[in-house]
Amino acid sequence: MCELLAMSANVPTDIVFSFTGLAERGGVTGPHVDGWGISFYEGKGNRTFKDACPSSESHIAELIKSYPIKSEIVISHIRQANRGCVSLVNTHPFSRELWGRYWTYAHNGQLTGYLDKFKVSRFQPVGYTDSELAFCWILESVVKQFGEQEPDDLNAVFDYIAGLADEIRQLGVFNMLLSNGVDLMAYCTNNLCHITRRAPFGKATLIDTDVVIDFSKETTPNDVVTVIATRPLTNNENWVVLNPGEWKLFRKGELIRS
Amino acid sequence: MCELLAMSANVPTDIVFSFTGLAERGGVTGPHVDGWGISFYEGKGNRTFKDACPSSESHIAELIKSYPIKSEIVISHIRQANRGCVSLVNTHPFSRELWGRYWTYAHNGQLTGYLDKFKVSRFQPVGYTDSELAFCWILESVVKQFGEQEPDDLNAVFDYIAGLADEIRQLGVFNMLLSNGVDLMAYCTNNLCHITRRAPFGKATLIDTDVVIDFSKETTPNDVVTVIATRPLTNNENWVVLNPGEWKLFRKGELIRS
Repeated sequence: MCELLAMSANVPTDIVFSFTGLAERGGVTGPHVDGWGISFYEGKGNRTFKDACPSSESHIAELIKSYPIKSEIVISHIRQANRGCVSLVNTHPFSRELWGRYWTYAHNGQLTGYLDKFKVSRFQPVGYTDSELAFCWILESVVKQFGEQEPDDLNAVFDYIAGLADEIRQLGVFNMLLSNGVDLMAYCTNNLCHITRRAPFGKATLIDTDVVIDFSKETTPNDVVTVIATRPLTNNENWVVLNPGEWKLFRKGELIRS
Repeated sequence: MCELLAMSANVPTDIVFSFTGLAERGGVTGPHVDGWGISFYEGKGNRTFKDACPSSESHIAELIKSYPIKSEIVISHIRQANRGCVSLVNTHPFSRELWGRYWTYAHNGQLTGYLDKFKVSRFQPVGYTDSELAFCWILESVVKQFGEQEPDDLNAVFDYIAGLADEIRQLGVFNMLLSNGVDLMAYCTNNLCHITRRAPFGKATLIDTDVVIDFSKETTPNDVVTVIATRPLTNNENWVVLNPGEWKLFRKGELIRS
């Protein structure tokens, strides 16, 4: 198993606080020592930091914790390998270009009996995980359904992806984060929750390490920031738990579809 | 204009020495202040570090200079914007998946009158540079020629790409670095040179900053490392200058095709 973290915000926001909690689970408070990655959208641009070593020991994770990158959408993942060896090539998030946007994806869970289903050619996995193959199959299916040009109605695309995720869930545990740089989708099989922070902002305390933040000092009154995680990251806020088969779509921090 | 840097090696090798020289040209000894990026292959895996700020001032560039990532192939670029604003989305290297490999690309130069030529749909640019559009057109042309499955003869693919690069060169200056994680291609219009280091290794002195390295202390006798750059990075070695229209293909540090 692995742990997921994501953020959708209406203003460029750093995720240092939440990532600091998540990174502890990569070797200190959790067993997810088989690599980690984090992908930041800055406008349409995207950059992903990855390491095959535990996040709690990674030089690059130290940089992410100390250097606040302001971003509207973030997807992060810490890995405990089940399918695919410990290697950079198998480290989430995975990214592909479609319709002139970078699509970024991370998966928590394990699938079985998927090779017959996930036939792909236009999008091929580079590594050896069930996760990346499922991502390629989703994008391949989307292109077959909607063609090579981005449709006007992106809601229809995410509805279609939710249907694909329902199919994948028949093969095992499929908790997914997916973004095209505009919308952030969360699909739940068994472990996914979220919180939306907005004014009046208060203090939050990390579960995994001794850090408290006062969001009222870090934000403006109009900020709206949603954080999604496998398990709650703070112990003094009300996280909303997703149900099996439930999905939610966020844009600029707000829930826009489910 | 911009500056390019690349490496091909037969053993995982760090590029800290060469990148330290290049990064100085991003604001100190050179005017390339509009962002920078570096992409490392580790096996089939690939990770790219990018920043839209000058490399000489970048926190992330500091990390790259202090944290030796061992890689077989590296492509790096520091940018002085001509087409496309200063933004993460316009920062090289660019990357796309094709045939289950990450293809990585960087371009130095400027093109004109290219919009009619570079019609793409399967690979679309995310940013606004002539460079990324040319990369998409190259990959789109390769798929049209060779199909969706990787052909056995990759030499034929690089020969074909060299032909495409000859066409692009008719539109302006096109110095290109391209890799699929196995081979590294360098295509020259006017500014590209390389050096292949092998035993007996000696000392090298950077031109752009006061750093000397004794490669004999950093290598084993079997190491072969080729470095490609827009302009020589050291002042006591013999760099080989490429001619206009000339291209070279390196694998594991050795020249295998030109």
